[in-house]
Amino acid sequence: MPVNTEVVKIALCQLRTELVLEETLDKAGRMVREAAQSGARIVVLPEMFSCPYSGRYFHSFAARGHGPILEKLSAWAEENGVLLVGGSIPETEDGRLYNSAFVFGPDGRQLARHRKVHLFDVDIPGMRFKESDTFGRGNEITVFDSPFGRFGLAVCFDLRFPELFRAMAERGARAIFLPAQFNLKTGPMAWELLLRARAADNQLYVAACAAARYAGFDYECWGHSTVTDPFGQVAAKCGETEQILYAELDFSRVDEARRQIPTITALREDLYPVAK
Amino acid sequence: MPVNTEVVKIALCQLRTELVLEETLDKAGRMVREAAQSGARIVVLPEMFSCPYSGRYFHSFAARGHGPILEKLSAWAEENGVLLVGGSIPETEDGRLYNSAFVFGPDGRQLARHRKVHLFDVDIPGMRFKESDTFGRGNEITVFDSPFGRFGLAVCFDLRFPELFRAMAERGARAIFLPAQFNLKTGPMAWELLLRARAADNQLYVAACAAARYAGFDYECWGHSTVTDPFGQVAAKCGETEQILYAELDFSRVDEARRQIPTITALREDLYPVAK
Repeated sequence: MPVNTEVVKIALCQLRTELVLEETLDKAGRMVREAAQSGARIVVLPEMFSCPYSGRYFHSFAARGHGPILEKLSAWAEENGVLLVGGSIPETEDGRLYNSAFVFGPDGRQLARHRKVHLFDVDIPGMRFKESDTFGRGNEITVFDSPFGRFGLAVCFDLRFPELFRAMAERGARAIFLPAQFNLKTGPMAWELLLRARAADNQLYVAACAAARYAGFDYECWGHSTVTDPFGQVAAKCGETEQILYAELDFSRVDEARRQIPTITALREDLYPVAK
Repeated sequence: MPVNTEVVKIALCQLRTELVLEETLDKAGRMVREAAQSGARIVVLPEMFSCPYSGRYFHSFAARGHGPILEKLSAWAEENGVLLVGGSIPETEDGRLYNSAFVFGPDGRQLARHRKVHLFDVDIPGMRFKESDTFGRGNEITVFDSPFGRFGLAVCFDLRFPELFRAMAERGARAIFLPAQFNLKTGPMAWELLLRARAADNQLYVAACAAARYAGFDYECWGHSTVTDPFGQVAAKCGETEQILYAELDFSRVDEARRQIPTITALREDLYPVAK
């Protein structure tokens, strides 16, 4: 049976990461299954979904290895027949940590890996964080093919950089997945704004899966997983609690937006460089 | 007396363009004076402020020449001692029309000219417009120095292109002025979104002066002149009627935003080109 790639149901699993790895993995597996049973063909998990987002946990969780988690992601994708954007997890290579997102196809094969390219180093009143103390930076722009079309992949703070999103669009991405964890400071200020802007500028879908808020934990995620459409409008958005958010990606709207307001073809490469 | 360049009051004159040129010019002159008397040191007029925004008027208004209007703009700037971003007007050169914005310093000297670089060619249900049937495209990115600092200048549809705004920021602009006329279709969908996004991405002010809505006219402007700040928030915004909107540009907030969330210095030029 040919896959209908025009309209695809997507599920963002806004889970709360627990302090005990096995609990989180059990929960994530259950949520992926529930999403698939509800008709989702694409399922997305949050940034650092397996590991509490705090300098106190990164190294000890990474020490347990990313291999076993990748095996689980692959199995969940295959068992449920979904494209699984497996959030991000701490990945270790040559003793260096990376904040890496992995994608698995409905047959369980790994389709992509994106190491977060822009690390979260900020000094906002009430919110200081220096991710580069712990993680290495990725060095690749990530676009991949899947049974549902060509997509882009980025992680959280990568959202701040229009050039990265332009490059993914120019490489043919029709939706971009963004596991993320904005917080109570940056969330209200920029989360929806930037998700809408990246979608509008590139006339494609952006599907951003946040973690649920963990009140009282070191880092409180803003939640509010969101899907923005090729016109820059919010297609679906939830609050801060643990839940699965569903939306439909209608790829004919990508073409429609690009026909109506032809910005991508109107870029002035004679005046400025366009990321590709 | 040294000019205080840290905090400057700006006025956006959201005027309604009349069908009789002299009426519009008289009104514009009065509004610039009122803005200056209210303490504004920078005054901005809308896109095509002198000429009704419709294919029925562009050529006949252009035929009267842009020179006399430039003389008036220069005089208003000098008489009121303000930096005057003189909206845009139809400019003619070698028989070709341009949608051009001109800036005059408090001494009446012309400081900049920006010919709209991206023309408004859209085919939205209920809103079809092909500006390139009438106007030639500008071929320059525009940044200029003034007694209040270095600024960028763009016109309306130019707002859709993040690379242009990045280039102005990289050239040192700390605020970007945008005479514009979004309409009743594109206004609700993208006006505030894009103004906030360009400010947030580049951590600078964007001051966008629209025309007032002219109910029943060929092209109804969305109005809603807006100033967005270096954190991507709305600093001031008005409705659709004729009025002067005031805001303060506090340039220390540009530095503050860039210190807190250092995105511009975190750009990955090894992975993608950055417009300059």
